[in-house]
Amino acid sequence: MTRNLSVRAERIGADIEALAAITDPERPWTRRAFTPRFLEGRAYIEAAMRAAGLEPRLDAAGNLIGRRPGRRPGGGAIVVGSHSDTVPDGGRFDGIAGVVAGLEIARALAERDVALDHDLEVIDCLAEEVSIFGVSCVGSRASAGTLPADWLQRAAAGKTLAEGIAEVGGDPRRLAEAKRDDIRAFLELHIEQGPVLEAERIDLGIVTAICGITRVEIEVEGRANHAGTTPMDRRADALLSAARLVDAINHSARGRAAEAARRGYFAATVGEFRIEPNAANVVPSRARLLVDARAERRSEMEDFLAELERLLAGQNGCAETRATLRVVSDNPPTPSDPALLDEIEAAADIVGVSHRRMASGAGHDMAWFARVAPAAMVFAPCRGGRSHAPEEWAETDAIALGAETLLETVLRLDRRGSDAATS
Amino acid sequence: MTRNLSVRAERIGADIEALAAITDPERPWTRRAFTPRFLEGRAYIEAAMRAAGLEPRLDAAGNLIGRRPGRRPGGGAIVVGSHSDTVPDGGRFDGIAGVVAGLEIARALAERDVALDHDLEVIDCLAEEVSIFGVSCVGSRASAGTLPADWLQRAAAGKTLAEGIAEVGGDPRRLAEAKRDDIRAFLELHIEQGPVLEAERIDLGIVTAICGITRVEIEVEGRANHAGTTPMDRRADALLSAARLVDAINHSARGRAAEAARRGYFAATVGEFRIEPNAANVVPSRARLLVDARAERRSEMEDFLAELERLLAGQNGCAETRATLRVVSDNPPTPSDPALLDEIEAAADIVGVSHRRMASGAGHDMAWFARVAPAAMVFAPCRGGRSHAPEEWAETDAIALGAETLLETVLRLDRRGSDAATS
Repeated sequence: MTRNLSVRAERIGADIEALAAITDPERPWTRRAFTPRFLEGRAYIEAAMRAAGLEPRLDAAGNLIGRRPGRRPGGGAIVVGSHSDTVPDGGRFDGIAGVVAGLEIARALAERDVALDHDLEVIDCLAEEVSIFGVSCVGSRASAGTLPADWLQRAAAGKTLAEGIAEVGGDPRRLAEAKRDDIRAFLELHIEQGPVLEAERIDLGIVTAICGITRVEIEVEGRANHAGTTPMDRRADALLSAARLVDAINHSARGRAAEAARRGYFAATVGEFRIEPNAANVVPSRARLLVDARAERRSEMEDFLAELERLLAGQNGCAETRATLRVVSDNPPTPSDPALLDEIEAAADIVGVSHRRMASGAGHDMAWFARVAPAAMVFAPCRGGRSHAPEEWAETDAIALGAETLLETVLRLDRRGSDAATS
Repeated sequence: MTRNLSVRAERIGADIEALAAITDPERPWTRRAFTPRFLEGRAYIEAAMRAAGLEPRLDAAGNLIGRRPGRRPGGGAIVVGSHSDTVPDGGRFDGIAGVVAGLEIARALAERDVALDHDLEVIDCLAEEVSIFGVSCVGSRASAGTLPADWLQRAAAGKTLAEGIAEVGGDPRRLAEAKRDDIRAFLELHIEQGPVLEAERIDLGIVTAICGITRVEIEVEGRANHAGTTPMDRRADALLSAARLVDAINHSARGRAAEAARRGYFAATVGEFRIEPNAANVVPSRARLLVDARAERRSEMEDFLAELERLLAGQNGCAETRATLRVVSDNPPTPSDPALLDEIEAAADIVGVSHRRMASGAGHDMAWFARVAPAAMVFAPCRGGRSHAPEEWAETDAIALGAETLLETVLRLDRRGSDAATS
């Protein structure tokens, strides 16, 4: 049984609806970063910030930040937010729910006339989704001081990323100034983008970590032969070997996932798969697989990579073919701040929402803020786990429960001063 | 131990070398039908026909036919040949070996001054390979009266197939006249295009049948989900189901092939395989497979198709996905004429070559002539089974053994008159 909320679900719903209306009408719901429509969305958010008593500014990286000054500045800012850009055909909630939750927290504080010791900031991070420039988390990487300098010269649609940041209102020449060292805590609300909370009828996910993501390319070499004239026992069929690998990788991933309680969240997917020559009457000579593996714990990822090597060395039952692997990218997991997790959990209990700890299989702005500040995030359930699709949906009431939990967390952190919740 | 041959390997080698020189210099060995270079090759063959005492003509379908009149016309022609066109980057032997063997048989008969009762014809069938018009066996289909009329209007490179046939010297308006009803026997020598004869060190393959070829498209539908946020036990992974199908199809085909003695030659290949959306971070939602199955016996093909249906109905261990199949094309096997097979076998024993009966997994002109005449073919071994590739290779001596066997077969058929070797 939840308490009477300080946040108001109908205001959250109104913001989400208003932002949803700012979409490419041909492709709802699309509001990609670095487009005029994105700036329209930003104008709405800026106005909402002002109405909530926040003082908006743009940092050098193009992050939109609404500040509510604290009574005792110097203890660092409590930052709440996410991002307002979408993928093409994207959604009305991914990122947006977190920005709107931040706005509503500020409104609830203003409404109740609560004074905080710490500065409170609501942030809309620039370009979390992969934009036309082919990279993600532009704003939050800059906040962490880790935006690679050469990315600024990436060009698309007749401009560079630097020019894109400038158009948004940032100042790429002073990008280093966007790096934060003054954050007391970073809190992000996001829709789960997965099916777990809905299936388990749980109000709130408390995110223990952003999973590490490792991508491995596997190439299988066989021998092109005539499909009609080459007897079955004289083939080196690259597709057959690759198909058995897909099955073996899935088998391994299922086993690891089934032991999540002991080993942490794990998933592995073969998302890209191509064969050559891909002709009806030719035994496939080559196959290329891209494995996307996500692990809450680094040790589990390392164990999986070692198993992949063993699978390939064992030829996977196809002695005639040869498989090699190459790690394409390898990002370690980002654990949430343990003390912050405890604060959020206590807040959730006070609010009276049901909750569970869970890892995030997807990346988020939070992972970058975690490099420079105590950071954590919460998940609101969403329908069918669908995301990055027009049918993405989360109930306003569910988002309100998350916002209320973060509001309670903000109050708890503010009361504790600067002596707790540091990593 | 083979007898002294009547055919001469060095003349066979000289013809093959001369034709190989007539190639696109940028892509050896390429001499595609309906190109000027193809007509250059034809000019060489026509001159060689005249030199061998044959009277060349072009039939309405553009087949080049060199005739040696018999003493008692009316008993039908004994036709020996294959085709002189190649695939792109194709080979020096595929088809060509059979045309050259026909020429050498005519030369050997002329040299020994042997008079036959029957007409002997050496044929170079037009466009056996898939040409720019996207179809195969143009000449031999016309000889069987089965070239679909609408194919004549197929257009490519600024001309129709009808115009292409006319350029070669045929007369597409009189195409019906190309249909044969006067063939006593059709004999084709071809390279095996497979590895069996070389591996078993056998001189000659005696082809029992052209396998039936059935192509089946399988579509697997799953559900696109985020690869990071969708737990392993909540997925409908179309690639996983498709991969298991590939393994199961291969398992079935290997089992059938291993029992070839009882069930006839069998092979099945998944040569085309594509997934959607084919994105690194998305669980595959769809997969499309094209199965190419080849069976010497129709009953075996039917049994395989029934097994495919069962595999799909059983969901192949992936209850969350749904697979459907569609037969894209279905051509029954073409058995060789049994009496002709016996004649060839007897001839091979007289020549002293080692031989085995075997099915052809690939299609050939012979399959079309079999519709209007007793027909059979022989295979010469080739290196590594490679074909439709620049490295395609067959030893001239091996082709000579096949040509000698066909020469002996011609002599036997001629002596038997018209009372035997009919199907």
